[in-house]
Formats: sequence, C-alpha cells, structure tokens
Amino acid sequence: MSELRKDLITGRWVIIHKEGRRTKKRLPSQSLAKPKDEKDCPFCPESISDIKEKELLSYRDQENRWSIRVVPDKFPIVDSEGELDKEGVGVVYDRMNSIGSHEIIIESPMHDQTLDTLPYDQLEKLIWAYKERFLKLKENKTIKHILIVKNYGKTAGGLVIHPHSQLIALPIIPKSINEELAGSKKYFGFHQRCVYCDIIYEELRKPKERIIFNNNYFISLVPFAPRFSYETWILPCTHNSSFENISDQEIKNLASILKDTLTKIKINLNNPGYNLILHSGPLKENYLPEYHWHIEIMPKLYRSTGYEWGSGVYINYTFPEKAAQLLRR
Amino acid sequence: MSELRKDLITGRWVIIHKEGRRTKKRLPSQSLAKPKDEKDCPFCPESISDIKEKELLSYRDQENRWSIRVVPDKFPIVDSEGELDKEGVGVVYDRMNSIGSHEIIIESPMHDQTLDTLPYDQLEKLIWAYKERFLKLKENKTIKHILIVKNYGKTAGGLVIHPHSQLIALPIIPKSINEELAGSKKYFGFHQRCVYCDIIYEELRKPKERIIFNNNYFISLVPFAPRFSYETWILPCTHNSSFENISDQEIKNLASILKDTLTKIKINLNNPGYNLILHSGPLKENYLPEYHWHIEIMPKLYRSTGYEWGSGVYINYTFPEKAAQLLRR
Repeated sequence: MSELRKDLITGRWVIIHKEGRRTKKRLPSQSLAKPKDEKDCPFCPESISDIKEKELLSYRDQENRWSIRVVPDKFPIVDSEGELDKEGVGVVYDRMNSIGSHEIIIESPMHDQTLDTLPYDQLEKLIWAYKERFLKLKENKTIKHILIVKNYGKTAGGLVIHPHSQLIALPIIPKSINEELAGSKKYFGFHQRCVYCDIIYEELRKPKERIIFNNNYFISLVPFAPRFSYETWILPCTHNSSFENISDQEIKNLASILKDTLTKIKINLNNPGYNLILHSGPLKENYLPEYHWHIEIMPKLYRSTGYEWGSGVYINYTFPEKAAQLLRR
Repeated sequence: MSELRKDLITGRWVIIHKEGRRTKKRLPSQSLAKPKDEKDCPFCPESISDIKEKELLSYRDQENRWSIRVVPDKFPIVDSEGELDKEGVGVVYDRMNSIGSHEIIIESPMHDQTLDTLPYDQLEKLIWAYKERFLKLKENKTIKHILIVKNYGKTAGGLVIHPHSQLIALPIIPKSINEELAGSKKYFGFHQRCVYCDIIYEELRKPKERIIFNNNYFISLVPFAPRFSYETWILPCTHNSSFENISDQEIKNLASILKDTLTKIKINLNNPGYNLILHSGPLKENYLPEYHWHIEIMPKLYRSTGYEWGSGVYINYTFPEKAAQLLRR
C-alpha cells in the first residue's frame, strides 16, 4: 500500500511507499575524515592558499587565530563585481549577467570536524557569521536573496572535507523560494495565518509523531510529505520571515537543536551524506506575515532516479512517522 | 563570466556558467549492452517471468511473436485497484491512497537494443503503444495524468538493461506539469498565444543556434535556459496540448526525430545515461489553447549537487548554443 501526501506549502504531491522488494540501493556512508588526509586542504589555517588575502569575515582569538572564517569561493558561480545588466534575447527570452556573491564559510579551523562534532559555542559563532554576512550583503541592493547551502559528503556533492558551508547571494529569487512564497501567500490569503506557524501548531499536538526535537525556540521534524527518506526541517517557533532577524536567544537554541538533530542523523543513519539549505525570505522584505524562514536537511541515502526532479513526482520509501521514530532513538 | 537565464514557461532562473577550473566530475558512459548479459532478464520473450499472464497490450506478428509489449510493473509505486479515498490528516494535511497504473512498455524483444538503435518502424510502434495506453487509461476517471518516463543507463537510475519505458498514471497532476500549466496559462493570458508555439517560432528564426533537428512536424532543440548540460526538448510544431491526440503523420515523424536526436546524443556525448520524460496535459482536457505536449531529454553527465533541486537554483556549465552546436555534429 502506498499513499499520496500533499505538501501544505507548495501543493506538491509525494508518493509515500512502503519499502517493497524493489528498494533503491543505499548509497555508501561517509567515511570519517582523518586528520589532514588532504595535504593541500585550502581551508586549513596553515594553508598557503591565496584565499588568505581576500577574507570577508573572521572571528579571532587574542593570538589572532581564527575560529570561523569567510572567504570568496575560488571558482565563484556568480561575479562579485559589475553592474546588473538585464537584456532581452530575441523576442521572448530574458537574461542578465549574474552579479552576486559566492562565499565559503569555514566552520572550524580543524580539518577533521563535522558540523555535529563542533562544540555548541562554535556552532553559535557559525550562525553569527551567517547573520553578519546576511546583514552585510543586504546593503547591496542588487542582491535579492541569499542561500546558505551545505553539501556534506561525496554522495551529496561535497568536494572538500574540511567543514564548510557556502553562501550564494543572487540578483534573483530562487525557484524553490518563489514556490514557498507563492504557496504561503495563498494560504495566508485564505486563513490569515502563516502556514508554517500552523504546521508547527499541528505537529506539537499529540501524538507528536513527526517531531525529532523541540525546545522553546525551535522544532525539528520530518515533514508530512517529505520528498526524501528522513528529510528533516528545523523551524523557529516564533514567526519570522527573514533569517537575519534571528535573536541572540534563538542563535543559542538553533546551535543546540542543529547539533542534536545532525547527531541523530549521523548515528541513526550511519553517517550519510546530506544537503542542508537555509530558506529565508527576499532580502528587501524585513517582515512578511506569511513566510517563515527555516532549514531543510536532506540525507542522501539513495540515488535520485533523475526523473523525480524532472517530473516533480517524488517517491519516498520511508513513512515520515517511522523516520521520525527512528531519528529520535 | 556567467549569466542568468530565465525559462520562459516556469519563470525558473538558471545559472549558465563557462566551464571553469572547477568543473563537475563527468559520470561514466554507459557500457553497451551485450546480448543476454543478464541471465534472468524479465523482459526477454523467453523469460518465464510471471508478468506473462498480465499483459496489457502487445503488438504481434503472424507467428504470435511480440514486437512491443506492455505489462504491469512488478513492484508498482501505485495501486491499480481500489477506490480513490481522500482524507484530511489532523487539521491541515491531506492524503489519499495512490490509485493509478504503473506499467512497463517493453520497447523491443531484443535484449541488447537501445532506443536509438531500434529501426524507425519499431519506434513508430512504440509511440503507437504509448498512444493506445493513454487512450485506454483515459477511460478511468480516477486517473488525472500520465507520465511516460525512460531511465536509460545506471547513472540515470535505469535498473534493467532490456530496453523499456515506464508509464505512471496518477490521480494527481505532477508538480512539474502543474508549473508548466500555470506558467503557460499566465503567458496565454497576457499574449493570447501558446508560449511553446512562440518558442518554436523564435527558435526557427535565423541563426537557429539552439536547434538540433527540425522537420515539418517536430523540432528538437536545446532550450534557452536548460537546467542540465545538453538538455534537449522535442516539440510538435502543430499546437496540441495532449499527446494522445498525436496524428499518424506525427507518429511517423516523431519516430524519426527521436531516433536521430538520441543517436546524436549517444555519439557526441559518448553514450551517456539519460532520463526522458513525456510531458502532456491533464487527461480530462482534450484541448488547452495554452499548453503544448513535448518530450524532455536530460543526459546525465554530472552528478547533481543535491542542493540544485533543493534550492531550485540549477548551475549548468554548458552554454546551450554550444551544446546544440556539438549535438548537431
């Protein structure tokens, strides 16, 4: 027996299927990083890489040793300089040069750490760094949106082992964010309530079967209609559309729930690769009553069959209630 | 230098980037199938598999040997029997049981063929079989939409070598089709013209730099804002929203352009895996002035970085004009 479930925000239907005889092949677990297993890691403090000169932000101790460091990506997917130049192509098409910022946030000076093994206070610093970069880039009126992305492990597209995330600031709103904005606007128009706030309220009712963790500030859960096995979202309990408005108390609590959730994923799923994406509203909006920033974590347990993103029909072989039960263990 | 290009239909922005020093790693080419390299191929005529009893359609010669055969998938992702049962879950969520049809269309009795090596008349038969199944399934009012999907090669999620496609009939409209429907409706509302017809008109103007092939009935091209390197679309030149309305002449010409396009992809890209998806309108609509059925082919040359479908920001390292130039070779 399989069932179809509808994502409340985007309206996307997902096929949730009982694990059958034909299951997808499990991708390999990530091997734990060994200290300095890459001789020329560009992100280690002793690296002589040329990124040293172009530091965008760092947190340093009294001996000038950094704990968090933000540098431009060496091979950026957007250009950081120039004027935004939109033009029509032929009669119907549009293009623009891609002005923005593509940055690497080095999460620790230690090569062999992972996000879940970092101490709580280091994670706090990391979230502070995200916030600082958001606020700084917000001054640039060309930039419309910022994505924070983490690809952990080879199976998730991670290329460098040294713990890091990427920041991608673009002069457009990414499609997935636009879909969330449109869906949540529609819901708000109907109910005069934020759809994410309603999801949190609904999930906190007994029997809380999709919740992994919750504290006064954040909740981590497997969504009702997840695209991927063990997909996990972390949402702030207080309504807020823009990540950069995160409060000091929230930063403390996000560090804690993020570490705890990632630890559960690592232990219970045997250290899978994953993609983590921070979804936040458009930079020009300080407050949208209908939108709610959040984090989506997608463990990469199975190869996508390719037509899944091509067709928008996702097939998930793990019921979310079972997934949450296993992750809570 | 990179640029942002907007897909005219969905409004999705794609980053088109010059191949830089950091390119994605090329996935392996598919090895050519050897005759009977799988002892127990379930799709070979001599197979004693239990799918024999459940044939849904076949084309046979006078000696009762089939050339095309349609059978139910052994491990279907939807249930073929039962009543559609929609229900609310909690206060906010929706689910339904997934009633539909999941079928395998065996494209040839020969184990070692691929879509591009099949003779033109065999491809014609295959398209006839698609059409017959569409028309048959249309009688079932529970089914809202049909997807035809082909995963060729391991890198594209293909599990069985014997040439086959899948038909997935669902009681919902898949998200990607909904997006196309919404986008093309918006365009039609503004211009009173079909966006796909306008794209064809635009692409046929000199210098035709994104066209691979065109005949009086079909055009194959690399779209203006492709998500993937060498992504290719095949569109009928005559407006038609529903694949099942395809005419005899069109079937002849589709067989020809499909074989020729796939041959170019195989030769010029060194036999890559690919996903092929047939996009058609909702079954209940016989004619929509704004929508246009078509085929999308996505060669699987690189591993997706995972956050691409998570964020909706696709990064394509091959300019479409260069891609089309290479594919035309």
